[in-house]
Amino acid sequence: MNSQKSNSNCVIAVDAMGGDFAPQNTVLGAIDALETESFTLLLLGDKEKIKNVLNAENKSFPVDQIIHTTDNITMSESPSGAIRKKRNSSIVIGSKLVKENQAHAFVSAGNTGAVSVAAVFEIGRIKGVERPTITAPFPNSKNTFTFLSDAGAFVDSKPSHLFGFARLSSKFVEVMYEINNPSIGLLNVGEEDEKGYKLTSETSTLLRNSNLNFFGNVEGKDILKGKTDIVICDGFIGNILLKFAESFIPFLKDTVRSYSKESIANKIQAGFAKGALKGALKNVNYELYGGLPLLGINGISIIGHGSSSRLAIKNMVLKAKEMHDKKLVEKITEILG
Amino acid sequence: MNSQKSNSNCVIAVDAMGGDFAPQNTVLGAIDALETESFTLLLLGDKEKIKNVLNAENKSFPVDQIIHTTDNITMSESPSGAIRKKRNSSIVIGSKLVKENQAHAFVSAGNTGAVSVAAVFEIGRIKGVERPTITAPFPNSKNTFTFLSDAGAFVDSKPSHLFGFARLSSKFVEVMYEINNPSIGLLNVGEEDEKGYKLTSETSTLLRNSNLNFFGNVEGKDILKGKTDIVICDGFIGNILLKFAESFIPFLKDTVRSYSKESIANKIQAGFAKGALKGALKNVNYELYGGLPLLGINGISIIGHGSSSRLAIKNMVLKAKEMHDKKLVEKITEILG
Repeated sequence: MNSQKSNSNCVIAVDAMGGDFAPQNTVLGAIDALETESFTLLLLGDKEKIKNVLNAENKSFPVDQIIHTTDNITMSESPSGAIRKKRNSSIVIGSKLVKENQAHAFVSAGNTGAVSVAAVFEIGRIKGVERPTITAPFPNSKNTFTFLSDAGAFVDSKPSHLFGFARLSSKFVEVMYEINNPSIGLLNVGEEDEKGYKLTSETSTLLRNSNLNFFGNVEGKDILKGKTDIVICDGFIGNILLKFAESFIPFLKDTVRSYSKESIANKIQAGFAKGALKGALKNVNYELYGGLPLLGINGISIIGHGSSSRLAIKNMVLKAKEMHDKKLVEKITEILG
Repeated sequence: MNSQKSNSNCVIAVDAMGGDFAPQNTVLGAIDALETESFTLLLLGDKEKIKNVLNAENKSFPVDQIIHTTDNITMSESPSGAIRKKRNSSIVIGSKLVKENQAHAFVSAGNTGAVSVAAVFEIGRIKGVERPTITAPFPNSKNTFTFLSDAGAFVDSKPSHLFGFARLSSKFVEVMYEINNPSIGLLNVGEEDEKGYKLTSETSTLLRNSNLNFFGNVEGKDILKGKTDIVICDGFIGNILLKFAESFIPFLKDTVRSYSKESIANKIQAGFAKGALKGALKNVNYELYGGLPLLGINGISIIGHGSSSRLAIKNMVLKAKEMHDKKLVEKITEILG
């Protein structure tokens, strides 16, 4: 394998077996990214299956950049157990490549829990990071994004964890979205400091006494308003909010569909509505996000939706490249030093 | 006051001072309800102000059914402190009327926390209820509602609290929506039993060993799908989800508005979209819900949105009447006996 990373060349390992439409979408999405940007791509998974996808689309790709793996971690498997047992899976091997400096980034649309656990135990955390975090962009009324952290990496956070999420996502937003000193809200049931419970009040104190741009408490209604650049919460609520938010567009489609069946006039109206909604909600399309980064890991780790499309995979890989070029991991390491 | 309640007559006390548009919307909404259904209405608040609203709209209403109160609890006031100090407020007096059997129901669009605290400490809980709960209807793709409990009455629940919410909301949905043995989901970050944390796994055990129709874990994406009739969670996350969900329509409007400004074609498309969305989302209109009931209280207590319209108040009052007629409190008391 000629993929030993150097400063001048970015090496991205892509989990060809991850997600509901692997290896089709994963391989082709990664190749699409390679046709857009210059980097070294490693494809991890069943060599024959990967070759079949490449051949079917007449894509030429160096065989020594396909890394054959034999174990398969399914979407519903228990993360820790899978990582322990399936050592020759694309998820474990991809993480090890980053750990061993043979790749800068690992991108996977596989089992989210397994990718997170592998990132923590195989790649390892940046020194000073108690807990890594997944940061998810929510579209907002200001036509920008509100970044929710933690969006589901780990549940049952302590105040110091939430404070850590704020530090990590603050740097992430600064480096990747060029927002200087991004504002941080703490998700709570009311604006007043005495609202919520022990976790929120203790986190609030930590944030208030830090050099971060802490706004104070924000409520559920403030995320889509874009009241602050970043919203901090425990991974349990973050994961539920993310999945709830993702279910809104399908709900809207179902609702408009039922409405259109009520009459011909409704049907015509709904036809126009579909076009307008598609256009208006283009930023809400998760395919464009480029996956969710796992921050605080000593390397680039991007986790994609299980149902990732070819476009989603492409954008995830390009996001990894951008993180490499903008030296995100190095900059996070600096502030924690 | 000739309002002593009897079995044949339903007495509903309405907080004329509660909400952002009081006493205008509260008084007129309550009168609208009175013009639809037969019950005895008590209006609580500043007598002169209430009379002014009635006179301005030429509404005749018995003066002895206006109960003058002098204290005013604001929307942002700390609940417990307000209830302790402002004994002559519409919220305290309304709750006391229910406690003293002079009214069957108290309806308020005032400070949610204060109404909840007053309900617990003035009216009191039904015997066997550890913690009351607010149950909120979320529209779903099946064109029915998914009921989320707890939607924000109290945070930091124990497993026994969540189990209690399931019992209360199950009976509520059965009595009020005529769904026999409604299915109950426990909100979690994954379907598997081992997901989540101590609170969810212990609650899961309680639910599994009960005679309730427990489905198992549900995720954030399952609420709008209508996977189960009821979804159980702690009030912290329930409140955040409710406020997040309520912010989606304004976000959609903002997004469609920005889109329509991009070109004339977009503007035309967006015009149709508005009509279709309004029609399709008619069930999502909170005004029609009739407020959120506080279940487990030894009387009817309905809490409305601070920004309640006249129609919302009317429907809240009618919901109180329906709860009375269907003997909801009596039926909850029965199952807990």
